[in-house]
Amino acid sequence: MRPSKRQPDQLRPVTLERGVARYAEGSCLVSFGETKVLCAASLEERGPPWLRGTGKGWVTAEYAMLPRATHERTRREVNSGKPSGRTQEIQRLIGRSLRAVVDLHAFGERQIVVDCDVIQADGGTRTAAITGAWVALNDCFAWMMSRSIISINPLKDHVAAISCGIYRDMPVLDLDYAEDSTAETDANFVITGKGGIVEVQGTAEGKPFSEEEFLSLLRLARGGVEELVGLQKQTIA
Amino acid sequence: MRPSKRQPDQLRPVTLERGVARYAEGSCLVSFGETKVLCAASLEERGPPWLRGTGKGWVTAEYAMLPRATHERTRREVNSGKPSGRTQEIQRLIGRSLRAVVDLHAFGERQIVVDCDVIQADGGTRTAAITGAWVALNDCFAWMMSRSIISINPLKDHVAAISCGIYRDMPVLDLDYAEDSTAETDANFVITGKGGIVEVQGTAEGKPFSEEEFLSLLRLARGGVEELVGLQKQTIA
Amino acid sequence: MRPSKRQPDQLRPVTLERGVARYAEGSCLVSFGETKVLCAASLEERGPPWLRGTGKGWVTAEYAMLPRATHERTRREVNSGKPSGRTQEIQRLIGRSLRAVVDLHAFGERQIVVDCDVIQADGGTRTAAITGAWVALNDCFAWMMSRSIISINPLKDHVAAISCGIYRDMPVLDLDYAEDSTAETDANFVITGKGGIVEVQGTAEGKPFSEEEFLSLLRLARGGVEELVGLQKQTIA
Amino acid sequence: MRPSKRQPDQLRPVTLERGVARYAEGSCLVSFGETKVLCAASLEERGPPWLRGTGKGWVTAEYAMLPRATHERTRREVNSGKPSGRTQEIQRLIGRSLRAVVDLHAFGERQIVVDCDVIQADGGTRTAAITGAWVALNDCFAWMMSRSIISINPLKDHVAAISCGIYRDMPVLDLDYAEDSTAETDANFVITGKGGIVEVQGTAEGKPFSEEEFLSLLRLARGGVEELVGLQKQTIA
Amino acid sequence: MRPSKRQPDQLRPVTLERGVARYAEGSCLVSFGETKVLCAASLEERGPPWLRGTGKGWVTAEYAMLPRATHERTRREVNSGKPSGRTQEIQRLIGRSLRAVVDLHAFGERQIVVDCDVIQADGGTRTAAITGAWVALNDCFAWMMSRSIISINPLKDHVAAISCGIYRDMPVLDLDYAEDSTAETDANFVITGKGGIVEVQGTAEGKPFSEEEFLSLLRLARGGVEELVGLQKQTIA
Amino acid sequence: MRPSKRQPDQLRPVTLERGVARYAEGSCLVSFGETKVLCAASLEERGPPWLRGTGKGWVTAEYAMLPRATHERTRREVNSGKPSGRTQEIQRLIGRSLRAVVDLHAFGERQIVVDCDVIQADGGTRTAAITGAWVALNDCFAWMMSRSIISINPLKDHVAAISCGIYRDMPVLDLDYAEDSTAETDANFVITGKGGIVEVQGTAEGKPFSEEEFLSLLRLARGGVEELVGLQKQTIA
Repeated sequence: MRPSKRQPDQLRPVTLERGVARYAEGSCLVSFGETKVLCAASLEERGPPWLRGTGKGWVTAEYAMLPRATHERTRREVNSGKPSGRTQEIQRLIGRSLRAVVDLHAFGERQIVVDCDVIQADGGTRTAAITGAWVALNDCFAWMMSRSIISINPLKDHVAAISCGIYRDMPVLDLDYAEDSTAETDANFVITGKGGIVEVQGTAEGKPFSEEEFLSLLRLARGGVEELVGLQKQTIA
Repeated sequence: MRPSKRQPDQLRPVTLERGVARYAEGSCLVSFGETKVLCAASLEERGPPWLRGTGKGWVTAEYAMLPRATHERTRREVNSGKPSGRTQEIQRLIGRSLRAVVDLHAFGERQIVVDCDVIQADGGTRTAAITGAWVALNDCFAWMMSRSIISINPLKDHVAAISCGIYRDMPVLDLDYAEDSTAETDANFVITGKGGIVEVQGTAEGKPFSEEEFLSLLRLARGGVEELVGLQKQTIA
Repeated sequence: MRPSKRQPDQLRPVTLERGVARYAEGSCLVSFGETKVLCAASLEERGPPWLRGTGKGWVTAEYAMLPRATHERTRREVNSGKPSGRTQEIQRLIGRSLRAVVDLHAFGERQIVVDCDVIQADGGTRTAAITGAWVALNDCFAWMMSRSIISINPLKDHVAAISCGIYRDMPVLDLDYAEDSTAETDANFVITGKGGIVEVQGTAEGKPFSEEEFLSLLRLARGGVEELVGLQKQTIA
Repeated sequence: MRPSKRQPDQLRPVTLERGVARYAEGSCLVSFGETKVLCAASLEERGPPWLRGTGKGWVTAEYAMLPRATHERTRREVNSGKPSGRTQEIQRLIGRSLRAVVDLHAFGERQIVVDCDVIQADGGTRTAAITGAWVALNDCFAWMMSRSIISINPLKDHVAAISCGIYRDMPVLDLDYAEDSTAETDANFVITGKGGIVEVQGTAEGKPFSEEEFLSLLRLARGGVEELVGLQKQTIA
Repeated sequence: MRPSKRQPDQLRPVTLERGVARYAEGSCLVSFGETKVLCAASLEERGPPWLRGTGKGWVTAEYAMLPRATHERTRREVNSGKPSGRTQEIQRLIGRSLRAVVDLHAFGERQIVVDCDVIQADGGTRTAAITGAWVALNDCFAWMMSRSIISINPLKDHVAAISCGIYRDMPVLDLDYAEDSTAETDANFVITGKGGIVEVQGTAEGKPFSEEEFLSLLRLARGGVEELVGLQKQTIA
Repeated sequence: MRPSKRQPDQLRPVTLERGVARYAEGSCLVSFGETKVLCAASLEERGPPWLRGTGKGWVTAEYAMLPRATHERTRREVNSGKPSGRTQEIQRLIGRSLRAVVDLHAFGERQIVVDCDVIQADGGTRTAAITGAWVALNDCFAWMMSRSIISINPLKDHVAAISCGIYRDMPVLDLDYAEDSTAETDANFVITGKGGIVEVQGTAEGKPFSEEEFLSLLRLARGGVEELVGLQKQTIA
């Protein structure tokens, strides 16, 4: 039995709320149960120097947690002088995931930064961030279209992400903190609307896992992402 | 005429929402109009090393802004390796303001950190932060009393803060960003429930100001803080 | 009775010695009693990048203390990798104070940096720094006039600063370290030669202060700054 | 056709040379073709503070590249003040991979640090590092046994790693730099001697990949790791 | 002819002024012509952690320049986050030079830090610093004797330093900035009162130098240091 | 008797192996006994900004040690955020030594960076680095000539370096770690093929040394460098 009483293949209640950051070109407050991430997309007319002359734009992401998003207060990373390895890993993952569904040649030499700030953390912050960031990015592109900066939405597909894990020998979908902290295997899947895999990360926390176990996690993830993409579609409709 | 059509002595709509951070011992989302600050108080059983053996506790604050709290995206301070001078100035001010109304000997050698994270910034973030932080701190002490960690609330008084300024030669209360960016003089007042002044900061942005002007700002601030303290009282009632 | 036997409204002996830094365009060693600050103004032909194209110049300040300026040795800030919050607060204050009396359009897109290095610290280092920095800046402008870089002194007025505080329930002027470390209220005032207020900072270290107390401090400060401006006038005569 | 003329399932020539670092408790210079990594295991009697009282030891890894390991010189990370995100990701991966096959309760509250320094980089540095680090770690444990610090080798199994990718629509094993820089999909697999999966990381660089493609990569990886484990066995025999 | 009209073996006017830092246990303002360094010795009851249990004390030095000590303003090192290589080289040299004449076992597990802050720089700041630091250190030990912390002065000998160089093919003593910036060879010598060499550093800025040239520099240095030691003796008499 | 049984004027076995870094324009693995340094010269078409318009090139060096080059593991400097003072001192020395024998006007506004990475450290790493770096630099210039980037080798002479010291009252050549850690005096000499002195650094670790002792060290060094230059000549023949 999962601590949350959910079925093995059951997501937590997911909400996607658009337009929450008044000044951002696109924004979305995403909740996966008690995990809440504020995603804000900012259009920057001047991209990084290495973009110049390429005719290409860039999409990047930054990730952080409020100190008291967590059960115990976490020290601000600014006070240790640099983002932690974990933070860097996650923001690189979010950026790669978004770029996998964006036509970078379709919006000029501009940069869009999607800030993903975790307001509350109960497991799965990176997957919630990716799922919400897609909505913020889509709204940013919509904003650009409404101002005739671009005429076609550079998004080629949806992208969403979900975690799975083996909890008490049972493959389960969308781990919350209680499950995550005791799961034997923890995996994150980033999958597009058409079902293509963008990123797979699986880690044995305890004993190594088998190919069969891994495939059962992948199957759960496919189902979860399908639901998430359905919610993205409703949200932007 | 003020850009917001407010009267010179009129606050923006102020709201104080308790209990917004599920894991914090006390929390408050404060809004001064479009300025929104999430204040979360965390009890730490182990205070800083210099507290040991003093029999005293400590209250401190940290302050930060989400990158897209602002009209234009602001760079994360973690990426420049340290909090800016402005950030440090503000978090020191919030900490001093709270400590002015706390009996530091009344809760043991513990530390309470109040994190003030600006979700949206439209002027007056530091004054909103102080006003909301008091509520978060009060709820943290209430939490401690409910668990019999302490038996009396160490808060001796309320404290709240408001900005005033001279906008187009007119002393006005609670500047929003549009006023703040063009005001000739900008002042912040931190005042207790009993009317004692805890901190006064007045800066001539353009031409120097006179004693009379300064006193008219102080008068406006007194009125504003009285209202804010009234709201604090309603909120915790 | 004050530890120094001074009257409540009595400054410490103040001296302003010009030309102490052989290579600087303007310099002044200012003493407020045992507090000694070396102020050196440096003309930089190339200002910060954001000045370009504005037709404006800039005046900024940096502040530091020698490690053994203080009773106990203080750690060098370079060894902790960044200026402390206190240092940043003070150097921003000195810069704002000077800019309040400078016509920034009157000396081209140049920058003048006024370095204020505390040689010895016995309270009031920031107010001594502002008072001495004005002399260094004036001499820097005189140097520029003597070389026909500019034809009119861009200084529109004098500016000087003094601290006041409530020491044993008595409002007193120009706190030395012995008073400062026990004062209930500590305030710094930056005032121009014509009596306009540029900056007011008042902090209750212990119990909050009343409007009346604050006004008595302001009155003391006015008298003190008048004397300081008189000394500046003698010095540059 | 692969640039190196290898078969799709063919590893580069792999060598594992023990005892290359005279002062280390265990060491191994591993080559995957032109990729060369020097792995050195250091026993530290004092582990990190959080180990104390747990009865457990710890195995961690650090990773770096010599500046001219690469085709173009790479800037030293010490000069930018911190390890890059990529470096941190890799060293966390190496550490997790090793810990997956170590009984952390079997060597006391000690720490073993395995330094993996890339002498030459031609793709696959992290997989070579994991494969060589296992040998260095094994020799460190052998050294401890020879000195009767421990009596049983805490290694429960072998672990090795290999990259796979989809290069010109063809799944291939052990990408070199020429393949890696143009592959559409890039995956790293960390697998134990018994065939358990410790870590899976798959990233679509270009278009998303399908489950079938991913499974063909996994199959290649299994074969590759089997060979690598065979070589480890020969090496330590 | 030297720019300063000095004889090849002639020092600049040297002064050593004691007791200039009111709060330091020992201090000395040393001038070698226009080069002025403020040396302040601070006794710290708690030395660095690695001293504990050794029965030994430690003498260390720190070195810095005021930004406008130089002809052109120099950026503060705190703003680049760390002491420069040059600064570290110099402060290590000063520390080693002092320790060469101190009996470290004669003052307990205490540390003395000698801060050498360059007020004005006209060449030879490190040699002036060493020469003045000896006086400050001597006065610090005298202070400790006067308070019966120690009964014997741990200084075993004098130590002083001087630069020499080959300027226009002529070996000269005590280079000022005008000479230093064009000298072909630049050498610093640290020599004790008894004539023992503590440190020799010779660098060919342009073409390499011969043994003969080097010996002529050493001969000049011996004469210079003898004079400096004579002045130290007068100063502390 | 020396711990290594060597004669006082006997070098350790020295080897210079060219072409060890496949991608570098020039490289050399130098061994002085158990001390091994990998030197790699990288040609950079774009030198530092201050070179522009000077018509001059630049040669610089960087130095680092692998963490387990040493008997006890040394912490990576990247983890403390900056190169140590020792590292900066050494890399400045290597750069100066190489520049002393290079015609900087003979290869355009390019920069050559010579990375000296210590693979194993048994004393004398800086002198081995200089000796090997010369070979790497020479091969880099040869590479440039072979590609007709330059037509004449800008190297005007050889340069090599060796340490000497007074070990148990006996002047000895080329100290290994066992000698270095107990030597009373430690000196490094950088000398050209023609016998010109480029750099001399002598430090009394214990008691000061005499001129005679210093001259005996210089004599040993001359002999040692002659041998080293002979080996360089053989190596590049």
